[in-house]
Amino acid sequence: MLEKKVKMMPLGDVSIQDDFWKEYMELVRKHVIPYQWEALNDRIDGAEPSYCMQNFRVAAKMEEGSFQGMVFQDSDAYKWLEAVAYSLMWHPDETLEATADQAIEIISAAQQPDGYLDTYYILNGLEKRFTNLMDHHELYCLGHMVEGAVAYYKATGKRKFLDTAIGYVNCVYDNIGKEPGKKPGYPGHEVAEMALAALYEVTKDPKHLELAKYFIDQRGQAPLYFAQEREKNKNDFFWKDSYFQDQYYQAGKPVRLQDRAEGHAVRAVYLYTGMAEVASASEDMELFEACQRIWNNIVEKQMYVTGAIGSSQYGEAFTFDYDLPNDTVYAETCAAIGLIFFARRMFEITRDSRYADVMERCLYNGVISGMSLDGKKFFYVNPLEAVPEASEKDFYKKHVKVERQKWFGCACCPPNVARLLSSIGGYAYEYNEKEFFMNLFIGGSMHAVLDGKENQFRVETEYPWNGHVKIQVENEADTGFTYAIRVPGWCRGYSLKLNGEAVKCPVENGYLLMERCWKNGDEIVFSMEMPVELVTANPRVREDIGKVAVMRGPVVYCLEEADNQDQLQELYLSENPEFVVKYEKDLLKGVVTLTTEGKRLSEEAWDEKTLYKPYTGRKFMPQTLKFIPYYAWTNRTVGEMLVWVRI
Amino acid sequence: MLEKKVKMMPLGDVSIQDDFWKEYMELVRKHVIPYQWEALNDRIDGAEPSYCMQNFRVAAKMEEGSFQGMVFQDSDAYKWLEAVAYSLMWHPDETLEATADQAIEIISAAQQPDGYLDTYYILNGLEKRFTNLMDHHELYCLGHMVEGAVAYYKATGKRKFLDTAIGYVNCVYDNIGKEPGKKPGYPGHEVAEMALAALYEVTKDPKHLELAKYFIDQRGQAPLYFAQEREKNKNDFFWKDSYFQDQYYQAGKPVRLQDRAEGHAVRAVYLYTGMAEVASASEDMELFEACQRIWNNIVEKQMYVTGAIGSSQYGEAFTFDYDLPNDTVYAETCAAIGLIFFARRMFEITRDSRYADVMERCLYNGVISGMSLDGKKFFYVNPLEAVPEASEKDFYKKHVKVERQKWFGCACCPPNVARLLSSIGGYAYEYNEKEFFMNLFIGGSMHAVLDGKENQFRVETEYPWNGHVKIQVENEADTGFTYAIRVPGWCRGYSLKLNGEAVKCPVENGYLLMERCWKNGDEIVFSMEMPVELVTANPRVREDIGKVAVMRGPVVYCLEEADNQDQLQELYLSENPEFVVKYEKDLLKGVVTLTTEGKRLSEEAWDEKTLYKPYTGRKFMPQTLKFIPYYAWTNRTVGEMLVWVRI
Repeated sequence: MLEKKVKMMPLGDVSIQDDFWKEYMELVRKHVIPYQWEALNDRIDGAEPSYCMQNFRVAAKMEEGSFQGMVFQDSDAYKWLEAVAYSLMWHPDETLEATADQAIEIISAAQQPDGYLDTYYILNGLEKRFTNLMDHHELYCLGHMVEGAVAYYKATGKRKFLDTAIGYVNCVYDNIGKEPGKKPGYPGHEVAEMALAALYEVTKDPKHLELAKYFIDQRGQAPLYFAQEREKNKNDFFWKDSYFQDQYYQAGKPVRLQDRAEGHAVRAVYLYTGMAEVASASEDMELFEACQRIWNNIVEKQMYVTGAIGSSQYGEAFTFDYDLPNDTVYAETCAAIGLIFFARRMFEITRDSRYADVMERCLYNGVISGMSLDGKKFFYVNPLEAVPEASEKDFYKKHVKVERQKWFGCACCPPNVARLLSSIGGYAYEYNEKEFFMNLFIGGSMHAVLDGKENQFRVETEYPWNGHVKIQVENEADTGFTYAIRVPGWCRGYSLKLNGEAVKCPVENGYLLMERCWKNGDEIVFSMEMPVELVTANPRVREDIGKVAVMRGPVVYCLEEADNQDQLQELYLSENPEFVVKYEKDLLKGVVTLTTEGKRLSEEAWDEKTLYKPYTGRKFMPQTLKFIPYYAWTNRTVGEMLVWVRI
Repeated sequence: MLEKKVKMMPLGDVSIQDDFWKEYMELVRKHVIPYQWEALNDRIDGAEPSYCMQNFRVAAKMEEGSFQGMVFQDSDAYKWLEAVAYSLMWHPDETLEATADQAIEIISAAQQPDGYLDTYYILNGLEKRFTNLMDHHELYCLGHMVEGAVAYYKATGKRKFLDTAIGYVNCVYDNIGKEPGKKPGYPGHEVAEMALAALYEVTKDPKHLELAKYFIDQRGQAPLYFAQEREKNKNDFFWKDSYFQDQYYQAGKPVRLQDRAEGHAVRAVYLYTGMAEVASASEDMELFEACQRIWNNIVEKQMYVTGAIGSSQYGEAFTFDYDLPNDTVYAETCAAIGLIFFARRMFEITRDSRYADVMERCLYNGVISGMSLDGKKFFYVNPLEAVPEASEKDFYKKHVKVERQKWFGCACCPPNVARLLSSIGGYAYEYNEKEFFMNLFIGGSMHAVLDGKENQFRVETEYPWNGHVKIQVENEADTGFTYAIRVPGWCRGYSLKLNGEAVKCPVENGYLLMERCWKNGDEIVFSMEMPVELVTANPRVREDIGKVAVMRGPVVYCLEEADNQDQLQELYLSENPEFVVKYEKDLLKGVVTLTTEGKRLSEEAWDEKTLYKPYTGRKFMPQTLKFIPYYAWTNRTVGEMLVWVRI
């Protein structure tokens, strides 16, 4: 019973009209996507060249040259095309589509007669292809190509890119596998697993599911392919001094035997997403149980309150249970995005709201913190505590930037943000023949065919700034189905009205299930209480002892130096703080701020010359504390920032 | 007025009889020194070979071979000889002296006709000598050779090693300097500066002081010698991505313009020690003021409560003011020893007890923590908070060992501990013609000639376990001088008795000055109150907010898992704790333990599945907290340890 119970709304059927999200989507459409196309073509003044499209042109013999850039440079074009595809679904744009078609022409022209398509090896010697699966990202590029191709096919109906991708998939199928004459390898950087599952949904070609399943099950089997490959080709093992060893690649043991999230966080969650897809498509309960164990480990022991994951810069990796440092943190934007991918599959299989709760936590916090409010600058690393001097002078906090950066040599996060935000409608709303699920509270209009009947809804909300959500049915004919509304994990009180009357509904798996015959003009008002909530962490999280995080609804708040002066570590909340909750429309593109009377550890008794002295109790000065949403930090001036505040 | 006001007691005139320190000295004499000799000769089963003496033999053409080991391997022999010299001063030992003489024969036989003596270049090509002063430690080895030679000469009166060292000094003098034809370089790793000052005290050869002064003043001058050297010889600049750049070597600017301790901590304090020596010997007030600025920066902004310094593993370096992390700490044993070196010179110039206070803080905490109680294992890194799982699994805490290690490939700390502990008497007692200073409260007998008159004292104390110190004068003839007793910075109440009667004395610069005509049988009893003291850190030290360190007298205490279970972060002291103070003679070779009724943050309300939840106040369980002296941690079982405890 692992088949998906629900599926994403086609993005063309969700028209987002939402003060909070629409602007992000438009930023992506108007700025990020065009900017990235310029970047892929090395036309950004002052930026490091990408060489991405140039590599394809050279590989296609359209121009002279050699391979340049990272080994996985091809993937940037694929991620861009995926973002373009989603954007075209909800905002058709002939010019953009023509540009994308042109890119696809170039990409396809580089394809080799047997379907192979990785410009690094095409340009550096095809005889060396598939000899460094561990680190050379050929199968990572394959994965992103397939993801982009499936999305573009769904967006436009055009098969060109899809056929190119299928050609490369078939080439890999012919060269990699357990059969004699093939190499028994698998991707060093996962993503192909989930991509192949998505391809299978389109092609229904069993080879495609089979290859995904093979990649998953061959991973970590003894004798270890990567170890053999390293030895045979004298490839360096960068992680030889590490604690995690081959678990960096989640390849230290077969995935079915794994019960913790380990190693490189982005690779890990991409793998787990693929595992969930394959478990579902092949009704593989054992594999699904591994997904559940790993999921539980992440959310119960290794996830920041912002939904961020991967607490160590070394290996960009998961570490050990309850190890969640706020200041040396990695918390890559892409990893939080990957957790959303994993969460969506787990939700689709289980129809359980706890997965959607995590999607929401990531989205409003650890993901959008990765992009500046003007859409022009990005974070890889999303710290929960930042001190500019430490980031400058402490080598082990060097990766913790206190300002988002313009673009990256290794440009993985910006396009990942782009493809997620331009497909956000599909995460918000999912459905099956009999149920329509509202997972995220995002305003807009939806068109859904359930059980053969047309439905039209309109959702209005100012979420996340308040908890009121109005849903209007705008159907021509009456239809019977269940409208399922997620009651968020953070929500401790709500009211539900139908056409102005309070109603009671069963709650199942965290969803209010409103089953009835819906008529035109029916109006649901779901109203969540949204008090300020102080959140405490399990005492095994050493860094958060004696501290709380301030949340309101799904939004994690933080203190910034701009509002609270520096030395934020000196600030304390009072034990039962009362907050002034205020929507400030001109601040940070409009945010709710939280203000409370707190206190500051007094420096009065201290002078410049005293480092230690006898303890005679703590003295405090009153200080007003002003909190802003975490995601919006460092959009004004550079300064200290703190999520976990003393109390 | 910068000439030294006091000088060390000759070690032969101090016979330590002290429960606390004598055992350390005997461990060094009986175990560390013999063990190290075996190590230097590659005769330790299972240990990485040192190659040290082998390199000298090969360089002396006594045997065939090539250079092996670190570029600074020679220095290990010199440090060993220095420790031997101190040991011989207070414990003559013909066999040991014969072994040392034999080592000196071999070393001297390797000397080149022009005095040069560095086996790395003798064996790898003399034409390359003095081409990588930045990293190749030729002048570091020179420094340790001179330190060893001066000590050995003072211990034995034999000139052989001294003359060899002078030969190398003169060779360096002829090759390095600002004069035409010389290379305007200076040591990459300092120590020669202080060594040359010590040599000058013996030889009174102005060239020796001049060379020390040149090394100090040339350092960091533009154009930067190291930068020129790097460029000319294509030497790699390992620190090119660092924040500190050439300040790693304290060479980013002229030392007189420096006002913070920066870069590699051991190099730094060795330099500052040399600066103080040269400032004193040449009455250079500007240079001394630089010493004072830097000293103040260290003790007011960059020193751990244990006296440890150098908070970052990267570069083994100082970082920025108030940056004193307890868990990612470096706090190298050698750096705390170097701070004692610096402190002693500053004391000798100023006769101010605040320098001796720091010596004491380092000695009883950050230095002896570096050696196991059996003298067989050593720490480089002395953390103030340790969690075994973090040290194993967090790459950035990999250097934080939770067990002392047997020996090191780069064996700098063990011989440094050895040479300090075997000369401890000289740090405890200093004198001039009219004053006798008791800086450290260490029991024993002293013989001192003041103003031409013989004096004999006997000191009895159980310090640091209690604050009672009895001093008996055992003179044949009456003598008039001032007996100066340091009133420690930590001491807030004391009594002073002379021959059973309470007396009052002036206190100057932190010293009780007892000036009188001393007679045989006079007895001073200085009795310090030694309550348990809670110490708080400046609130700018982020890591120590809301926490206190527990001290009693000079001893910093810690919690260990062995006494308090794990998850030490959950433990809180009560606001006004009462302690049971108990000397436990069978515990950790005899320590005073501190026990108090504290509390533990309750995990009751938490289950394995909950990482975050709404804050509803803190709940505690009563728990008895047992503290042991910090220096003695991890001498029983491996486990968590914590100095800064919540309150």
